[in-house]
Amino acid sequence: MASITIIDIAKMCGVGVTTVSRAINNHPDISEETKAMIMQVIKENHYVPNNSARNLKRSASKTIAVLIKGITNAFFNRLIQVFEKEIQQKKYSFILQRVDDKEDELEVAIELEKEKRLRGIVFLGGYFSHAKEKLEQLSVPYVLCTIGMTEEFDPNEYSSVSVDDFKESYKMVDYLCSQGHKKIALISATMDDVSIGKLRLEGYKKALADHGLAYNERLVRCMKEDLESYSMKNGYVVTKELLESEDEFTAIFAISDSLAIGACKAIFEAGKRIPEDYSVAGFDGVDISYYYNPSITTIRQPAEDIAEETIKILFDLIHKKTTHIHKVFPAELVVRESTMRIE
Amino acid sequence: MASITIIDIAKMCGVGVTTVSRAINNHPDISEETKAMIMQVIKENHYVPNNSARNLKRSASKTIAVLIKGITNAFFNRLIQVFEKEIQQKKYSFILQRVDDKEDELEVAIELEKEKRLRGIVFLGGYFSHAKEKLEQLSVPYVLCTIGMTEEFDPNEYSSVSVDDFKESYKMVDYLCSQGHKKIALISATMDDVSIGKLRLEGYKKALADHGLAYNERLVRCMKEDLESYSMKNGYVVTKELLESEDEFTAIFAISDSLAIGACKAIFEAGKRIPEDYSVAGFDGVDISYYYNPSITTIRQPAEDIAEETIKILFDLIHKKTTHIHKVFPAELVVRESTMRIE
Repeated sequence: MASITIIDIAKMCGVGVTTVSRAINNHPDISEETKAMIMQVIKENHYVPNNSARNLKRSASKTIAVLIKGITNAFFNRLIQVFEKEIQQKKYSFILQRVDDKEDELEVAIELEKEKRLRGIVFLGGYFSHAKEKLEQLSVPYVLCTIGMTEEFDPNEYSSVSVDDFKESYKMVDYLCSQGHKKIALISATMDDVSIGKLRLEGYKKALADHGLAYNERLVRCMKEDLESYSMKNGYVVTKELLESEDEFTAIFAISDSLAIGACKAIFEAGKRIPEDYSVAGFDGVDISYYYNPSITTIRQPAEDIAEETIKILFDLIHKKTTHIHKVFPAELVVRESTMRIE
Repeated sequence: MASITIIDIAKMCGVGVTTVSRAINNHPDISEETKAMIMQVIKENHYVPNNSARNLKRSASKTIAVLIKGITNAFFNRLIQVFEKEIQQKKYSFILQRVDDKEDELEVAIELEKEKRLRGIVFLGGYFSHAKEKLEQLSVPYVLCTIGMTEEFDPNEYSSVSVDDFKESYKMVDYLCSQGHKKIALISATMDDVSIGKLRLEGYKKALADHGLAYNERLVRCMKEDLESYSMKNGYVVTKELLESEDEFTAIFAISDSLAIGACKAIFEAGKRIPEDYSVAGFDGVDISYYYNPSITTIRQPAEDIAEETIKILFDLIHKKTTHIHKVFPAELVVRESTMRIE
């Protein structure tokens, strides 16, 4: 059926277009009676106002894209929900674009920007390592969320929102050391992750050093590149290998909760107990870390704050209200059942 | 910077536009040398071909939207990954639109169809209960995925892909009965869910009846409407109430794995064991049902098959290659550690 327009509704009602618009938008300068009549006509004709006052309002020309690496990561679900709410409140349209682990998010963004005439972009997850000249091909503002750039990149040229991955990783390893653990395995990112993966590894090393513990690279196990990154399966496979090796350890720190849960599964399958035989710690603070049995000691990232700030900065950049900034939120060590003190 | 076009590239290379196009699209009728030269110029000028041969090709005018209720449901993650892959392979653009539990997915779809000029829609999750005249406002084909319509709706007027929710629910309850359970609690959908929620409840009732067991409505506990549907928290809260009631039971069947995990948490918190004190079963077969401790007995839905078939039917409808069909996939009872035989 042909689309009905606001002009058609105005004709049917015998009023002006402005009056119809007032009825739709709850404008005070319209009598209740006229408004009721117009809304009835709108309803009967299944007219969907383009500038409806509803929070669903979207405009094809005002779109924000969120490019996400690792959509199965439960941590991102909470962020996405906030993104969508905030973007809709600003009357922008929201595109969620998943990017494969091995896909180049910047290429996807450049293409998407052209095709969808984006106003802004959020890069979520993965690690971000691109040439400056390629980044300059993006002509709309963007914000990195939960990720950073490598140090050689000028921080005045981009914005980011995250926790301090070095410090929070340090916090967890420091805690495990304080519980008497001297042999702490790390399930880390792949070594080409020079962003959060590197920072969390550095935090681990520094905490060991501060406790006078030797760094044993055999206890640092990277996620498998042929498995989905940050997945339970990846944590499971890596831990199974570690358990079958000759390398001794009393605790595992996995750089995501999902990896930690995979680690737990491998430990249970080997007939061992958590935390009596091995302490296991994660990172993120997703729901399942609480619901798992045993509940998982973790670093809880403030997901809502991170997501809200990301959108705030993005819109400030769009409206040229700010220069580039780097917002770092504190995260929280949450001690639960999966870790214990050893002698 | 102004966008570079294929014409600019042709000029810079001193060749015709067709030649540039051939280079980009790996056409055989172009010498390797010319192709190399053109690709070098393309690279140096950061030109992004609009009709690149990459699977990223999207067109603003060819868009499929997936409207999803319950984005935190891990089961949907697997479906979404397949949707995206299949839609991109068909050179269509993919919009993922989350719909709140209390939001009307049909209203969202009607508005989205106008604004984004959609070619097709997938409705995923929730339950689908809409007036016929309102459905007719959708002018593009749509497929219901994992959901059905109420019986009064003419099946010749819509398409759907799902499992047989009645039969699969029956299968699980029949299994629990065969293990000696006579008092089986059900964590069900809200009573206004006249789609899969109702079918799974009916399957439960029928299995009890076939085993000569009385139906006790006090053991049927609906998810809380003020909590996110199908969430771990919902399962937790409902089970905590059940445990604190006077109602006796030896097994819980939750109509999703996430609800089942919430149920497990409540049982552990009450100082009880699984499966020794209570058997717990779920539905869906998501990854965490395997990784949980104990691993959860569940009904595994064939997520990939369901998602692929949904897209296949949708495109057949778009290309008018099919009339409406209802594809039902078998699901599989997966017995794991969370259930046991009792005397």
